[in-house]
Amino acid sequence: MPEYRALRAKHSLLELCRTPELAAEVTLQPVRRIALDAAIIFSDLLLPLEPMGLPFDFVKGDGPVVSTPLRTEADIDRLRPIEPREAFAPVLEAIRMVRPELDVPLIGFVGAPFTLASYAIEGGHSSNYAHAKELMYQRPDAWHRLCGKLATMAADYLKAQVEAGVQAVQVFDSWVGALAPADYQEFVQPHVRAIFEALAHLDVPTIHFGTGTAMLLELQRDAGGDVIGVDWRVPLDQAWARIGDRAVQGNLEPALLLAPRDRLLARADDVLRRAGGRAGHVFNLGHGILPSTPLAHVQALTDHVHERGRN
Amino acid sequence: MPEYRALRAKHSLLELCRTPELAAEVTLQPVRRIALDAAIIFSDLLLPLEPMGLPFDFVKGDGPVVSTPLRTEADIDRLRPIEPREAFAPVLEAIRMVRPELDVPLIGFVGAPFTLASYAIEGGHSSNYAHAKELMYQRPDAWHRLCGKLATMAADYLKAQVEAGVQAVQVFDSWVGALAPADYQEFVQPHVRAIFEALAHLDVPTIHFGTGTAMLLELQRDAGGDVIGVDWRVPLDQAWARIGDRAVQGNLEPALLLAPRDRLLARADDVLRRAGGRAGHVFNLGHGILPSTPLAHVQALTDHVHERGRN
Repeated sequence: MPEYRALRAKHSLLELCRTPELAAEVTLQPVRRIALDAAIIFSDLLLPLEPMGLPFDFVKGDGPVVSTPLRTEADIDRLRPIEPREAFAPVLEAIRMVRPELDVPLIGFVGAPFTLASYAIEGGHSSNYAHAKELMYQRPDAWHRLCGKLATMAADYLKAQVEAGVQAVQVFDSWVGALAPADYQEFVQPHVRAIFEALAHLDVPTIHFGTGTAMLLELQRDAGGDVIGVDWRVPLDQAWARIGDRAVQGNLEPALLLAPRDRLLARADDVLRRAGGRAGHVFNLGHGILPSTPLAHVQALTDHVHERGRN
Repeated sequence: MPEYRALRAKHSLLELCRTPELAAEVTLQPVRRIALDAAIIFSDLLLPLEPMGLPFDFVKGDGPVVSTPLRTEADIDRLRPIEPREAFAPVLEAIRMVRPELDVPLIGFVGAPFTLASYAIEGGHSSNYAHAKELMYQRPDAWHRLCGKLATMAADYLKAQVEAGVQAVQVFDSWVGALAPADYQEFVQPHVRAIFEALAHLDVPTIHFGTGTAMLLELQRDAGGDVIGVDWRVPLDQAWARIGDRAVQGNLEPALLLAPRDRLLARADDVLRRAGGRAGHVFNLGHGILPSTPLAHVQALTDHVHERGRN
């Protein structure tokens, strides 16, 4: 969106995240333009790393870069516990500012332990997660201590977001699809479960998101979440049959927004057909929107899905 | 291996690929050290891009970088057809040099159309394949023309490798797991099928490899290959049940070679247990070996799998 690009020309991504007025403004930009059914608070997945003791920045072309990646047990023991009302004050303030402006629900979010740990350990994006997996296999106790700290932070942070006004929360385990099911079960599932258990009494809908999770869906469902995210690699009907009695979110291939409109809408119809009108389908992309996506296609897709929902 | 690092200290990766004596030497290094059951010719997946008209180089930290990525239909029409005996003379010469030195079969390989196209179009590694998918959706004819050229090259190159002496061939579709099954079927499967059909009369075993392919296995099998590669994200017994009457290759998580020996061997046993002693299981990693892997662990794993195979 041009209005977002205009802000980014003046402010870094982290400035936007750390300035409540700007984060609120960026949160509202898409819902002003497009008839979306929800808004998600503008923030960055990695934000918790800095107050825990791992500063990072965004380096053009390389994405996030953690200045001193976490590698040793001493690094893990040095991670600081977080008081979310202090550490995330600007995000919580942005939530309070945005809520009265919205006619649709506001969603809060946090990164899941594996995804945050992988950034902390690899120091940024990774193609193979070799350092994270090495720590996991070589020092399972240290790995579990790290993920325990991240899970505590995640639950506390989401609770603070709910207190500040979000009406649903999403746990992003974006990179967990790199793991074998056995490793997910041993090294990740207990920590994700702890997050959802800590949220159970809050009475807000919870969304559990991942990508590349074709063989992890049942294990993710068992970890928790009222809604299970499904990416485009799994036909939605097959995914839902396996997930069973839970809502699902997804699962249009985000790159279809770069396709001609006919193909885009035909594939949206295919997703809807596979959902079969069953209650509990949250139509969404299977992952984040690509930067080169034309705004008109997002509008056309939103209108089309609403139109189909009315018929 | 130290002997490989010693060569790399003196020569670039592309020099090793383009100098038959060096490529032969690097091919032989692992089989001298470790009792492997096959050797794979040392080369690079991207090698065909340069003679087709897309020069590239390896940039430290960034991996391969194609100087002028392919973006337009004119770029596709400009791609040159290849005479493999000329274009790949050093690789074919390396094959002829290596064969008499080996007591185990020599495997040749080529990149599959999607994987090569993604490098050509993105200009290197990509996290989202946005440009490749945009071309695919926006200009299906151009996409099919591109993949047709890549499939013709792949088949001709593999035939030349067989003539030069390789005893099995592997088609690497390393990045195809980024696609939805419907897109695989429409945009990729016909071209991969054309490669395997062109090889049918050669009477050498063919291996069809991919990663992140949990939901593509049946479509890949239908495209061809005597052996279907399975990565660690899918339990091997489940994968094999779906693949049916075909051999399978895999599927140990490569990062387990960074684990303590007990965990490594226990997980290798789990792979073997899931294969259940059924004929037609090629034990292998689910993807390439990680650079930080200790050589002693590769030796221990190889010995262990051989030992188990004898019992």
